[in-house]
Amino acid sequence: MDREQCLGLLQTVRVGRLVFTEDALPAVQPVNFRLYRGQVVIRVAGGAKLAAATGNIVVAFQADELDPDLRTGWSVTVVGHANLITDVAELVDVAGTWLQPWVDGRRDHFIRVQTQKVTGRRLHAPLAATA
Amino acid sequence: MDREQCLGLLQTVRVGRLVFTEDALPAVQPVNFRLYRGQVVIRVAGGAKLAAATGNIVVAFQADELDPDLRTGWSVTVVGHANLITDVAELVDVAGTWLQPWVDGRRDHFIRVQTQKVTGRRLHAPLAATA
Repeated sequence: MDREQCLGLLQTVRVGRLVFTEDALPAVQPVNFRLYRGQVVIRVAGGAKLAAATGNIVVAFQADELDPDLRTGWSVTVVGHANLITDVAELVDVAGTWLQPWVDGRRDHFIRVQTQKVTGRRLHAPLAATA
Repeated sequence: MDREQCLGLLQTVRVGRLVFTEDALPAVQPVNFRLYRGQVVIRVAGGAKLAAATGNIVVAFQADELDPDLRTGWSVTVVGHANLITDVAELVDVAGTWLQPWVDGRRDHFIRVQTQKVTGRRLHAPLAATA
């Protein structure tokens, strides 16, 4: 799949997984996300630790829709630099893409993952593939 | 959740994600898996490249069940050394845990991820949490 197809699939789901390094070990955390101006924006409720961990490091973000036997579905992975969004105007704009309102007191963080490398693949049933 | 609870949840699903490093960048690939003797065993159909990439390196394996707004569900991550299973007796034993038969000609690979570090968390609805 090309980049546009991958980004198109990402727009059909709201949950993905952020992959980063924590204490020198790989870590995976489910996150809510949106595509915003061609970038992946992750909303982290109070995740100060996670937000701090993503200071311009390269992370992976992955989302998929899969059946239990991996016969059909898709998976898309984005690799890019992650940054905390701190510009107030941008924060308000980004937060507006979520149904749940953004309240400053909740201390939500929004992390932008640049879509520098976008890869994906569709899974097909073996039967269909050999038919 | 403790280790036993995490492993118990892993036994309820068949699809997870292997997180590893490819070309010095993080990579994520959906995989079918089973718990086998307390370890995660991943079946890769013809994934010679993937199998080669997991030569005793530390990888992460993650599985989850999540609703679209991350209100309920769980996520479990395993971090440990990954090794290709090459012992024939063990291969036959492991392959028997899959419904689809293992045929040598298909060149499936089985990768064991040691459950050296097992972490997980359950998500709860915010309303329930504040009630």
